[in-house]
Amino acid sequence: MEIVFASRHESNPREWVAALQQALPEHQVRLWDACQPRGQADAAVVWAPPADLFAHEPQLKHLFNLGAGVDALLQIPDLPADITLVRMEDGGMAVQMAEYVLHYLIRESRDLGQYADLQAQARWQPLEDIDRDAWTVGVMGGGVMGARIAQVCAALDYPVAVWSRSGRPVAGAQSYGQDELADFLARTRVLVNALPLTADTQGILSRAVFDQLRPDAYLINIARGDHLVESDLLACLDSGRLRGAALDVFSCEPLPPGHRFWSDRRIRVTPHIAGASLMSLTVQQIAGKVRAVVRGEPITGIVDRMRQY
Amino acid sequence: MEIVFASRHESNPREWVAALQQALPEHQVRLWDACQPRGQADAAVVWAPPADLFAHEPQLKHLFNLGAGVDALLQIPDLPADITLVRMEDGGMAVQMAEYVLHYLIRESRDLGQYADLQAQARWQPLEDIDRDAWTVGVMGGGVMGARIAQVCAALDYPVAVWSRSGRPVAGAQSYGQDELADFLARTRVLVNALPLTADTQGILSRAVFDQLRPDAYLINIARGDHLVESDLLACLDSGRLRGAALDVFSCEPLPPGHRFWSDRRIRVTPHIAGASLMSLTVQQIAGKVRAVVRGEPITGIVDRMRQY
Repeated sequence: MEIVFASRHESNPREWVAALQQALPEHQVRLWDACQPRGQADAAVVWAPPADLFAHEPQLKHLFNLGAGVDALLQIPDLPADITLVRMEDGGMAVQMAEYVLHYLIRESRDLGQYADLQAQARWQPLEDIDRDAWTVGVMGGGVMGARIAQVCAALDYPVAVWSRSGRPVAGAQSYGQDELADFLARTRVLVNALPLTADTQGILSRAVFDQLRPDAYLINIARGDHLVESDLLACLDSGRLRGAALDVFSCEPLPPGHRFWSDRRIRVTPHIAGASLMSLTVQQIAGKVRAVVRGEPITGIVDRMRQY
Repeated sequence: MEIVFASRHESNPREWVAALQQALPEHQVRLWDACQPRGQADAAVVWAPPADLFAHEPQLKHLFNLGAGVDALLQIPDLPADITLVRMEDGGMAVQMAEYVLHYLIRESRDLGQYADLQAQARWQPLEDIDRDAWTVGVMGGGVMGARIAQVCAALDYPVAVWSRSGRPVAGAQSYGQDELADFLARTRVLVNALPLTADTQGILSRAVFDQLRPDAYLINIARGDHLVESDLLACLDSGRLRGAALDVFSCEPLPPGHRFWSDRRIRVTPHIAGASLMSLTVQQIAGKVRAVVRGEPITGIVDRMRQY
């Protein structure tokens, strides 16, 4: 099989090519080069691929995405209908996202942000003990990421619920199906978004949703910036409906220098780092799937274009 | 059984008496009152008990401590030799300590302190991805607290080791026995102290120990302030041997206003809040043990005065 690596954003494309080649010595791996004539690659490994990839590589049958979210891929106008899209499943991302969520959950539930402020004033002042039942966590999305997040929050005895399209059970958490959003929100204080971005979920983090949460609620968004209606978040912070938010993703990335999120003390901003595909695990996963394809075996992680993930 | 509640520090002694009485309606629970004549209590529930408790209550057979650490209790000069000391086992503390440790571990391993600084400058700058193998966690102490800490760190795929007197296995962690301290330290980057304070462990967090850790090490102390040689910590921070520390306990509490720890940006100070005995769980545990004692059954958590915990 001939495999082309094509990314507009990856800072070390040659490292990826070398790692893929090493993992798949029986196949040919090369770096995308727009100046070359038409290629005959059977598969591409991509992250934000160049617009003319598909015109240049008309033989592509499989597209392996380096991320779990394929919303941007599905927006590419000339994405051929017969290419099989394969998204990353975990690849080291789930545990990273889980610990990111835990960090900010614990910061709120245990007043550790306030203790940092008290330290700055050299003030020794124990605050209220935690009432764990008051810190109900609600995870939107029951995929690999959502399930791992729910699992680690449950391991710390937080009452956890997961809302997902399927409503399928997640160990340690209460499950809510698509039609049970209102019940899910009514019991949730810390809302964690781990949904794929689709036409259905775009803008889901809005005032209508925030208004249904328990009082003094907190938002953690690690999925996509377009899930969030930014002005609704600011309004709900100003009205006291929400106590704060930890945001790793934004509609416009990098977040512009003048954006209000940067300077709002109730908001923690991180530059889309909650979960990164780790090269070794990613290469291992893709290599395994390439071999399965060659052997004619089924693979997991194939994107359902109707569902959009 | 007659039970007296005696604490110099507890802010709500009457609440504790009421909760204990409700949990043990068949027994008599009363609040310590220094102005009353000699009492006939069979058991005392204490936290930093008044010095004349034992002179006033000569019938005491059992002393239930509200905390897990009994180092202060064992220092009381007229502590009768025939009283059975019972310490809290968990009581909601272990999970609190585990999440406290996780918060600061993740803050370091994922650069979340640095991201907060970057946010203050409105700078979008992704840093290095995490190399989980570089963040080896070493927990000193294999009791209920240490085991729970090790377990949650392992659930986040950190390489975890536990060093304990017994060296008994802890799920998800590598175990080191008393004589294997050097090996334990050599593999550890994030050192977590969950030891009881005894003559053997006092001052154990010293330069000699810090010097054996992996480079760029981090210290988390949630046990007792007297485990730490404060000047050694400052020297090792200044020399770059340690990158930072999260400290919840101090030799002198409250930490005095002028203390260098308050203003050192590499140190996070919290006011002895990492793990608090939660009233409901504590009362439940003590009530269960009181009933077992009355029935003549064995109870757990009895302090071995030779071991000092």
